[in-house]
Amino acid sequence: MLEALKQEVFEANLKLVEYGLVILTWGNVSAVTPDRRLVVIKPSGVPYESMRPEQMVVSDLEGRVVEGELRPSSDLLTHLELYRSFPSVNAIVHTHSRHATALAQAEQELPCYGTTHADTFYGGVPCTRHLTAQEVEEDYERSTGLVIAETFQGRDPAAVPGVLVCKHGPFAWGATCQKAVENALILEETAHIALLTKIFNPSAPPAPQYLLDKHYFRKHGAGAYYGQA
Amino acid sequence: MLEALKQEVFEANLKLVEYGLVILTWGNVSAVTPDRRLVVIKPSGVPYESMRPEQMVVSDLEGRVVEGELRPSSDLLTHLELYRSFPSVNAIVHTHSRHATALAQAEQELPCYGTTHADTFYGGVPCTRHLTAQEVEEDYERSTGLVIAETFQGRDPAAVPGVLVCKHGPFAWGATCQKAVENALILEETAHIALLTKIFNPSAPPAPQYLLDKHYFRKHGAGAYYGQA
Amino acid sequence: MLEALKQEVFEANLKLVEYGLVILTWGNVSAVTPDRRLVVIKPSGVPYESMRPEQMVVSDLEGRVVEGELRPSSDLLTHLELYRSFPSVNAIVHTHSRHATALAQAEQELPCYGTTHADTFYGGVPCTRHLTAQEVEEDYERSTGLVIAETFQGRDPAAVPGVLVCKHGPFAWGATCQKAVENALILEETAHIALLTKIFNPSAPPAPQYLLDKHYFRKHGAGAYYGQA
Amino acid sequence: MLEALKQEVFEANLKLVEYGLVILTWGNVSAVTPDRRLVVIKPSGVPYESMRPEQMVVSDLEGRVVEGELRPSSDLLTHLELYRSFPSVNAIVHTHSRHATALAQAEQELPCYGTTHADTFYGGVPCTRHLTAQEVEEDYERSTGLVIAETFQGRDPAAVPGVLVCKHGPFAWGATCQKAVENALILEETAHIALLTKIFNPSAPPAPQYLLDKHYFRKHGAGAYYGQA
Repeated sequence: MLEALKQEVFEANLKLVEYGLVILTWGNVSAVTPDRRLVVIKPSGVPYESMRPEQMVVSDLEGRVVEGELRPSSDLLTHLELYRSFPSVNAIVHTHSRHATALAQAEQELPCYGTTHADTFYGGVPCTRHLTAQEVEEDYERSTGLVIAETFQGRDPAAVPGVLVCKHGPFAWGATCQKAVENALILEETAHIALLTKIFNPSAPPAPQYLLDKHYFRKHGAGAYYGQA
Repeated sequence: MLEALKQEVFEANLKLVEYGLVILTWGNVSAVTPDRRLVVIKPSGVPYESMRPEQMVVSDLEGRVVEGELRPSSDLLTHLELYRSFPSVNAIVHTHSRHATALAQAEQELPCYGTTHADTFYGGVPCTRHLTAQEVEEDYERSTGLVIAETFQGRDPAAVPGVLVCKHGPFAWGATCQKAVENALILEETAHIALLTKIFNPSAPPAPQYLLDKHYFRKHGAGAYYGQA
Repeated sequence: MLEALKQEVFEANLKLVEYGLVILTWGNVSAVTPDRRLVVIKPSGVPYESMRPEQMVVSDLEGRVVEGELRPSSDLLTHLELYRSFPSVNAIVHTHSRHATALAQAEQELPCYGTTHADTFYGGVPCTRHLTAQEVEEDYERSTGLVIAETFQGRDPAAVPGVLVCKHGPFAWGATCQKAVENALILEETAHIALLTKIFNPSAPPAPQYLLDKHYFRKHGAGAYYGQA
Repeated sequence: MLEALKQEVFEANLKLVEYGLVILTWGNVSAVTPDRRLVVIKPSGVPYESMRPEQMVVSDLEGRVVEGELRPSSDLLTHLELYRSFPSVNAIVHTHSRHATALAQAEQELPCYGTTHADTFYGGVPCTRHLTAQEVEEDYERSTGLVIAETFQGRDPAAVPGVLVCKHGPFAWGATCQKAVENALILEETAHIALLTKIFNPSAPPAPQYLLDKHYFRKHGAGAYYGQA
């Protein structure tokens, strides 16, 4: 079942390696079906070199494996919580990419320092609060999804398609697998440039709102004129 | 029309990828015809892997597309403004390369710390002022070109073939596509080395004027003796 | 003799190059036989490009070469001391990977800043004390092994499979060659992310103990549920 | 003439590209004949991709071209001065590698922070004084060689096979082309690790003398036991 979506999820996982966002078996990509009843996700701990499309695992929204001989990614319940909370999101990526993970470990949001950031993220990319001991011990992976959803109360996940989970690392998402992976790449790249910006000028201010507005909306929404029609 | 120039612009765009100066669809290269009436530029938002020479867009100096089925780069009007202001410039490159973009976000010029810089840039590479809200909202891309031209009042764009646009990123240029791309690479490389210099010694002074003179003029102008005759 | 183990040690040495952990002839991998009487190790100073499996050197636990025409790695006696002190360790890796070596030169332990670290190392990766002049002059390589063993008194080398030798660089180990090499890679990667974390936030605290517990034990021990059964 | 040496110099120049020490046409390698009467050096400003062994230029020790249709590297006179001053040196490399150049721009020596450094450099790698305006204007390239020689008064260039030229970049050397290129690579690598060391611990002290002695002399001199006999 879902062979096309499995192929898409498989290729998106390999893109993480190609883009230098993961090493070893770190990172995972999932996608939800259009009816939002099933999720296809990378199996847990399988090396990227030997991974095959048919090894992708199909789960329902409660985390029950519907098809697949391997265990799903251990982060499955985080993905599921996000699909429940973010109806506009069809694909989710988790990595431990260096600079985004460092920001998460530093417990800091990624400020919008310039147009490179504003082209994709409409404002800073937030860092969640710490999970409590109880949340970690009782239902860790689901709590990770819940704290991300909590962080986005009053924010549009389509306008800021990524987050930094405190002491953990980045999640990114999008309307398609390809978009989600690109957003994970852009989150890493803008975090990298933000680090360099801070070294050059520790008190560099964020970009002015009117520049953020201009760059974000020339690529997104009804008035967009970047790219092809 | 202009097949040879299209091929040249196409290859220059691919060099940006090879040199590690762009990811995804970021960055663009253009060139102007010898009579300075037409400009060939990369189409907007087309992935480098599938881009073909015949997709390059031909525009006149007012930004009207003369040939091409795709939309031109959204930065076209910036390029056009520079061709109008800088008669010695025949090709222009825009990237979001990491260290040069970080300097632009830090709102700092690139100082001439040594001979690596002096071989190409005769003095510091300036950072523009902020665009005003009005400039951004009314005519953003053209205003970007105008603020670069303003920054070069009293400077020779042939002697400092690049600039950092405040909160945005680098533009570089040259007498040919190849030279413009090389200058974009050198701007990134010298920004990278400048960052490392500042970490080693936050109060490192710029190179003395006599060393800048020596290195710049052994490669440029009537007394040059670097390279082949 | 031991052709299979030689092949394994050979391939593990090449992985160090593939993972970017060594340049030139820097770094070495060894493995001990199941009866812990013989050790297979890379020859000293042989370039990786021309190295062949049959050139691996076989030594007994006192450092006497049992088979092989080449000299063993000059770090052999360090490896042997570790096999004696750490019964759970079957393979050892030494590199001069950049960020882990920098931490060793900085005379600092690698703190557990987040889950990327906690997935592999149960707590900070310690830095040894300085060797004394006498230790260096009289029996340098063996003393290096002894000071690592001293550093792990009261620690489990299986739970923290790596160390930073003060003013020298990292050693990592594991139950297999592959695991030891992966741990060397993870030590470098987490040291890299730790550096970035410190730049973003010089006073970033370590991850809370309950998060370390959760991540370490979801991958290790009886209750592990990461990866495949 | 000197076809074998030309081939060797040619290959050494390409190694600079392979090791990531140069971009574009930056950097050059030369070698002197055993009788120290002729020097083979890279031509000036020729791209590495199209360079051929027969394009290497042969010069005498006064800088007169003896064979070759192209101009020699503009740094030829610096190389010649070093061959005159350092009788043990048979090959010289100049690059603008990032971290070594940054140290030169920072006007700082490279301290011996650990064994990675001590394996190759017996103590810190010095940074020259500034050249005076007169030295730069009257005889720049030869003065660069002279200031390097001045910096090594009382030092053994075989024991510290490299230098940082203030506001310029690194030179390295060795008994063979291969050794000189390796020393250039090690100078860059140790400068890189030194930078990371300083970020982790701005007050990190150098390695103790007894550790420097041990590591340097286990690879060099009569008592060496690293590598193969």
